[in-house]
Amino acid sequence: MGEHVESRPTDETALPVVHLRRPRWGDPATPGQLPAAAAALVGGDNPVDTGTDPDDVTLDDPAIPAAARSALVDALGEANVTADHRQRIDHTRGYSTPDILALRSGDASDAPDLVVTPGSHDDVLRILQICATHRVAVVPFTGGTSVVGGLTPDRVGFVGVVSVDLCRLDDLVEIDEISRTATLQAGVRGVRAEELLRARGYTLGHFPQSYAGAGIGGYAATRSAGQSSAGYGRFDEIVEGLTLATPRGTIVVGTAPRSAAGPDLRQLVLGSEGAFGIITEVTVRIRPTPEYRLFEGWRFDDFDSGAAALRTLAQDGPMPTVLRLSDEVETAINLADPDAAGTDADATAAGGVLVVVGYEGRHEEAEMRRVAARRVLENAGGTCLGTGPGEAWRAGRFRGPYLRDPLLDVGVLVETLETVTYWSRLGDLKASVTAALTDALTAAGTPPLVMCHISHVYPAGASLYFTVVCPQADDPIAQWKAAKGAANDAIRAAGAGITHHHAVGRDHRDAYHAEIGELALEALRAVKQTLDPDGVCNPGIML
Amino acid sequence: MGEHVESRPTDETALPVVHLRRPRWGDPATPGQLPAAAAALVGGDNPVDTGTDPDDVTLDDPAIPAAARSALVDALGEANVTADHRQRIDHTRGYSTPDILALRSGDASDAPDLVVTPGSHDDVLRILQICATHRVAVVPFTGGTSVVGGLTPDRVGFVGVVSVDLCRLDDLVEIDEISRTATLQAGVRGVRAEELLRARGYTLGHFPQSYAGAGIGGYAATRSAGQSSAGYGRFDEIVEGLTLATPRGTIVVGTAPRSAAGPDLRQLVLGSEGAFGIITEVTVRIRPTPEYRLFEGWRFDDFDSGAAALRTLAQDGPMPTVLRLSDEVETAINLADPDAAGTDADATAAGGVLVVVGYEGRHEEAEMRRVAARRVLENAGGTCLGTGPGEAWRAGRFRGPYLRDPLLDVGVLVETLETVTYWSRLGDLKASVTAALTDALTAAGTPPLVMCHISHVYPAGASLYFTVVCPQADDPIAQWKAAKGAANDAIRAAGAGITHHHAVGRDHRDAYHAEIGELALEALRAVKQTLDPDGVCNPGIML
Repeated sequence: MGEHVESRPTDETALPVVHLRRPRWGDPATPGQLPAAAAALVGGDNPVDTGTDPDDVTLDDPAIPAAARSALVDALGEANVTADHRQRIDHTRGYSTPDILALRSGDASDAPDLVVTPGSHDDVLRILQICATHRVAVVPFTGGTSVVGGLTPDRVGFVGVVSVDLCRLDDLVEIDEISRTATLQAGVRGVRAEELLRARGYTLGHFPQSYAGAGIGGYAATRSAGQSSAGYGRFDEIVEGLTLATPRGTIVVGTAPRSAAGPDLRQLVLGSEGAFGIITEVTVRIRPTPEYRLFEGWRFDDFDSGAAALRTLAQDGPMPTVLRLSDEVETAINLADPDAAGTDADATAAGGVLVVVGYEGRHEEAEMRRVAARRVLENAGGTCLGTGPGEAWRAGRFRGPYLRDPLLDVGVLVETLETVTYWSRLGDLKASVTAALTDALTAAGTPPLVMCHISHVYPAGASLYFTVVCPQADDPIAQWKAAKGAANDAIRAAGAGITHHHAVGRDHRDAYHAEIGELALEALRAVKQTLDPDGVCNPGIML
Repeated sequence: MGEHVESRPTDETALPVVHLRRPRWGDPATPGQLPAAAAALVGGDNPVDTGTDPDDVTLDDPAIPAAARSALVDALGEANVTADHRQRIDHTRGYSTPDILALRSGDASDAPDLVVTPGSHDDVLRILQICATHRVAVVPFTGGTSVVGGLTPDRVGFVGVVSVDLCRLDDLVEIDEISRTATLQAGVRGVRAEELLRARGYTLGHFPQSYAGAGIGGYAATRSAGQSSAGYGRFDEIVEGLTLATPRGTIVVGTAPRSAAGPDLRQLVLGSEGAFGIITEVTVRIRPTPEYRLFEGWRFDDFDSGAAALRTLAQDGPMPTVLRLSDEVETAINLADPDAAGTDADATAAGGVLVVVGYEGRHEEAEMRRVAARRVLENAGGTCLGTGPGEAWRAGRFRGPYLRDPLLDVGVLVETLETVTYWSRLGDLKASVTAALTDALTAAGTPPLVMCHISHVYPAGASLYFTVVCPQADDPIAQWKAAKGAANDAIRAAGAGITHHHAVGRDHRDAYHAEIGELALEALRAVKQTLDPDGVCNPGIML
């Protein structure tokens, strides 16, 4: 069993780098299509409406004062300062469903005034100083895939907004094969990072669902977690060092892999979402390209018994590389295999829940883990379904976001949210968030389908990721806002985390403040005040 | 092979709780004794001088204003506010060699004016408010084992110093067996924590060399790392939540095991060394009491080949529970087995270096790791010496600090320091620190023996722990200060971390500031200013 990667050149992580063109996801050459079964399920005979063509959306004239613009041009050169219509559109907001709906409706009111493309860390410092001087808000941009409003700063009190696209900071700076670390510029996209590292025989192993678009700086600023977090760790766990440009200068953190010297400053920069400055360089752990890769499906009778099996693996080992559990609804809809969504999942999983377990690594070591994990899963009541459902998930792992556009086209609302808690509270949290979403959307006359999966496990707890599908109401943005508010309240009431891997942005800001409390918030604001005294760094995001 | 722990009730981690009586280490009933071989080596015929009896040391009258003292008595009760001579002595400074030498010479000038013993988190809040009002400096105290001056605050600008001994915060608050977490009050000593958890079938697995004295709050405040860090993780890695009392109120962190909600505030409290307030409660990961435990010795030809073997295990696995490598000098002196120090190490290791590898856990899983690790160690050129040297290290693992007192008694200076860096720089760092220590002490007319070991490994790097032994000069405190300064300079020049697990305290403060840079330092000071506007929390420590 197991597969030698060398014999399979069509690795699904070896995608082309895609520059997303809003509002739709992915490469325009291969648009998302609704599987027939899914179309039949959700309303395939509705009229198709793809919304306003973004080229026809009206934008306000750039509000940046001439002095600020010319200072930026002086610093970066004319070619790296633009107010081009398409550029401004493609840097407007992120990829949450409300973001997409707003742009589809022709609302680009949050478009940045300018898009600038620095070529170096020093360029970023210059941009920050110019913007601080002129009171221009600054939004850092790598892949632009935020789903929490992380690219939509407050404009109040600022003369304009500049999107700082790090696309020119696209290099592998250094690779240390002895220490197994690589230093990447923050603008390197995830796909490109894999390409650069693969050429040297390594992988970063970080594959979030946003992989087609997202970049290193965004991973770090938002504490991204990839689908292989069980094996490779969350992004905040694989960062060894960071360089942060602030309006007051540069901070470099990560002198050593671990230290007892004061607070861990890496963990202050990670998750800072542009509020303290712009991350320009990240040193990460790398691993040898896996020589073995095998994904299996397992069936459990219900969510609780599947979750118990995942917990045993997380607490007692061995840890697979990928470990996820779809609940009964998601299993029935077969969302674990987006290309087949709406068909019945593997027949043998029917009526139960599907667990996908993946193993990657050196051949002997990964095979040993697989054998040991198999015993745990069997003892926990699981039935192995073979590699079929596992490989189907793997092949379709980045297709999920492509389904959303055609669903929105036919009047279906689809959105996701996620949370995290300790194992002892997981069942109650799942029940209360599901109820909150169901009740809110049913009360609005649009009863939803609520699916849930566990995709990230830790010894002490796990994440819950919800997918919600329902008919769009007349005002789908308000419709989702109410449902999301109800879910947030349920999460807060359960004492769970307001986000596991989507960050705070604007959308989670109030809930986040309630979660950490006023005094901790004041401490973070004091950090911001120190590094960004004029408050121009992504204002209104997180803090 | 392997041992069932049940059959061995005399687990060396099941020690009695010791309340250290300064200046000597450990239980006065079992004082440290110098092995005969060590005595012969270092000067066993020198006159024995144990220094001034601490009961005869002169203390200044407590400088605390009457109003502050009576406010503390009102808040805590008369029994919990004391200026008793012995109490003040036992809360004076920590356990670095300079600290011990100072007290042995009769210098107790850093003694706190009062020792107070809060019985609750709210008591701690009251103490902080009273001390802020009266400008009294506050030192948190659990085990009092700092070796970096963490218990020696600046007095300038304050009317006095209060040591807040958390010994009454000594409870297991809650155990969550589903999530495998335990919440402990910060005053629980490490030994007591194991006792409380063992009764429920669990272990914390945190065994620093200070284990006989240190406590949970100190572990958290200083980012302690235990001897089993390879298997159980550093203390900062096993903390899930913390409660911090500050002069401005309470901060609770750790809503969920992992989160993408802003900076990780746990990592701001961990390592804060009392500068932001006093940690009163800590939630930690726990594991089942290991059913298997086996320690082996391995011989490698030299430090570099041994280090390469450790690196392979840290990067490719499997990870043993304990993994340490003594260099040629330490191996020859046999410091891995303190009770036999000065004798030749296991003859088969002679001329080479000794690696100690320990495995703990579930029987089958630990045995599997052992088999796989054995293959890695053999492939890397190691020769297994059997369980003898491993078990000798294990049996003596907490004896090291007991050797220091009898060495000081006979005029030998002994002190340790540690650092951490990436694997690619480890060899150069070891050479330059060794040279710095050797040159500085040789120039002072006291050529030293410098030993080194690796005791904590990570995928990207490892710690280096140095032990220095030489004859005492006329002013041994100044003698060590010069040597330590030279070592710090070498560490800084190598770009390594100023401390891996001893924290910053006063002793590393300047080097720490140089390491993180002025802007990061300002950010941390802004946090302190927010939480402790009067600056009474362990002033001069870390910041």
